[in-house]
Amino acid sequence: MRIEIVAVGTELLLGQIADTNSAWLGEQLALAGVDSHFHQAVGDNQARIVLALRTALARGDGVVVCGGLGPTHDDITREAIAEVMHVPLVRDEAIVERIAGLFSSRGREMPASNGRQADVPAGAEPIAQQLGTAPGLVCPVGNKVVYALPGVPYEMQEMFTRAVLPDLRRRMGQAGETGTIVSRVVKTWGLSESGLGELLAPRIEALDAGGSNPTIALLASGIEGIKVRITAKATDAPAAAAMLEAEEADVRALVGDHVFGVDDETMESAVATLLSLDGHSLALAESVTGGLVAARLVNVPGASSWFRGGVVSYASAVKHEVLGVPEGPVVSEAAARAMAEGARRVLQADVGLAVTGVAGPEEQDGRRPGTVVVGLAIGEAPSEAVVLHLPGDRDRVRQYSAISALDLLRRRLLAAGER
Amino acid sequence: MRIEIVAVGTELLLGQIADTNSAWLGEQLALAGVDSHFHQAVGDNQARIVLALRTALARGDGVVVCGGLGPTHDDITREAIAEVMHVPLVRDEAIVERIAGLFSSRGREMPASNGRQADVPAGAEPIAQQLGTAPGLVCPVGNKVVYALPGVPYEMQEMFTRAVLPDLRRRMGQAGETGTIVSRVVKTWGLSESGLGELLAPRIEALDAGGSNPTIALLASGIEGIKVRITAKATDAPAAAAMLEAEEADVRALVGDHVFGVDDETMESAVATLLSLDGHSLALAESVTGGLVAARLVNVPGASSWFRGGVVSYASAVKHEVLGVPEGPVVSEAAARAMAEGARRVLQADVGLAVTGVAGPEEQDGRRPGTVVVGLAIGEAPSEAVVLHLPGDRDRVRQYSAISALDLLRRRLLAAGER
Repeated sequence: MRIEIVAVGTELLLGQIADTNSAWLGEQLALAGVDSHFHQAVGDNQARIVLALRTALARGDGVVVCGGLGPTHDDITREAIAEVMHVPLVRDEAIVERIAGLFSSRGREMPASNGRQADVPAGAEPIAQQLGTAPGLVCPVGNKVVYALPGVPYEMQEMFTRAVLPDLRRRMGQAGETGTIVSRVVKTWGLSESGLGELLAPRIEALDAGGSNPTIALLASGIEGIKVRITAKATDAPAAAAMLEAEEADVRALVGDHVFGVDDETMESAVATLLSLDGHSLALAESVTGGLVAARLVNVPGASSWFRGGVVSYASAVKHEVLGVPEGPVVSEAAARAMAEGARRVLQADVGLAVTGVAGPEEQDGRRPGTVVVGLAIGEAPSEAVVLHLPGDRDRVRQYSAISALDLLRRRLLAAGER
Repeated sequence: MRIEIVAVGTELLLGQIADTNSAWLGEQLALAGVDSHFHQAVGDNQARIVLALRTALARGDGVVVCGGLGPTHDDITREAIAEVMHVPLVRDEAIVERIAGLFSSRGREMPASNGRQADVPAGAEPIAQQLGTAPGLVCPVGNKVVYALPGVPYEMQEMFTRAVLPDLRRRMGQAGETGTIVSRVVKTWGLSESGLGELLAPRIEALDAGGSNPTIALLASGIEGIKVRITAKATDAPAAAAMLEAEEADVRALVGDHVFGVDDETMESAVATLLSLDGHSLALAESVTGGLVAARLVNVPGASSWFRGGVVSYASAVKHEVLGVPEGPVVSEAAARAMAEGARRVLQADVGLAVTGVAGPEEQDGRRPGTVVVGLAIGEAPSEAVVLHLPGDRDRVRQYSAISALDLLRRRLLAAGER
């Protein structure tokens, strides 16, 4: 079963809102084992909505169209569907009564324009509205189908789950299709996309040769590292979950400790888990990152049990006077070590992590933009400093610096715990 | 000129990432006066990318296709375009050299797979890569055009602005299309969408009655306040700019000092301008915001001339011991004032700004989640504290706290300077 998603609304084309409905629907269809090969967005124009629907029906077995069911004159999805079905719109008095009831329950009179929401293409089945005034529609087009849903996300989601998904399942059963598609994202840091691709190449080739189930794909998401998406098809959810589990183990065996988490896990949650296991508290000294590392860490629930705080030592004098960094260049190994030790001392923590560097565009202390030094002081071991050369403009250097510093801490905590 | 956007990536169809590229491109095309009637998203499958491109070319004058230019085996946008053009791919040795240079500048060898990124459909013009390894492509298809851009947002945006937009402008000039649509966004803080709507209602009615040029629209963008978008159509850029200028003045007259900036101006850049005018230096003490205020401020170019730094006093003990906050509840007016004074003293600045509060989900010091106290110490005046009650979950409370604190500082600096 191939279902295309069509999102209706000029505001989507103009970029005034991001199309989160299509993302949500795409995920739900995949989880239900329905293929969705194309999404479209189209403005509030009847001829173009008709063209988008016809294009979608030609490419697949059906369409979920989302938006354009409101009461105003630019809500014309109903008219477009009727044109595609070659039928007239017929006002459904039961729906009118239900809309009027919604208004009167709020002590208001139904405006006349809301009557339009009760117009149904002849031959279509309404999906009763429960959260808003717009009913949905199940519209047969030959042996294919158009599902129309409101654009308000929570109304759309409720109606999809209550009415569209069961109808899709029924159609798939008739067509003899069953099964589910699930996926998991394994997150890595420290490898280029091509470097990671080379590590995984033997596994990808083996999967391709073995029928491409599960599949592996690489996703470069910019600042947060390279992701490996594993997708598995199976007859039921437990079987699919077992395939993901086995494949994740294979990926981890090839990629090693470059993997810092899966799905919703983040670099900061990985660090938090290791600090909590060891009972360590953490203090920061941030210069080039200006508070970014701290802001990431406090997003982890329960951060107050291991995070003491930090010093944003943006001016050099603050490094010397507050953190006790010796006079001299502040983008240096010596300064980064002193910052980490200073943060640990001033904020009374077990672990000190420091970041100093040059975000650019100008040089500093004779070091090029993108030069960043991470300092780290853990337990009784001597403090250390690692020099990085990071690409990009000011903002990217800063973002890369923050995640690089957290990754260094993660690796050292892993090694210290012999995990 | 009608340009369709095609976003390539199975992760878009599966809802694993939202398609922010299409939203950004849609806005840029609208600003340039280019119609964009349809967007499509399609997975990493050559036949389907070809179908999406042919559909788009049939409906319009050209396509911006985004994504699928990476080095891995599922990056097949180049192959799909060559199929649409009915030409072979030819490896461009100048591009190979440039990619190899990018790797060697980071001290690494170019993996063989990156060579694929130098494959160009015969007859297409590469757009030189500057931020990543993937070049873009300008591909003529009859008298229409396919622009291929990488999917990484900052690479895509840089390449669109540098190469695609000028090429589109040239084509529009040849087609005899003139006129320009420009818009300006006036940013406000401290009003609800309906409150702002009431202030602007007389102006919006006058514009509607006068032919709707310029137009005014309100955009609620979540954390960064409510925006007023002014859009003007005119025969040339200077005429359109003059219309924007006049309308911005009208909007400012109605909305007053709730306006903190226009277009790329941010709350932090507004604060930076005022601090620089007064020759003041700033120090922060952040608890609930955990470094977010500092991270915003260091994004302003030249921050080092007025930003000393901050203390992220996440643990209560850090507030007492480092900042000298007296014992007692730390989410209080007294604590916020003491934090602001302590930050100013410890970091030797003229102005101290502090944020303490409860992000939730639990209460703290008997105060509900969303309770935030901003402390401020400027010059010789007594320090002050303002209590806010902010909506949302942990992350939103933190984000609102950061911008609210900066807005308070902005208003006090405005008042102190009698501006």
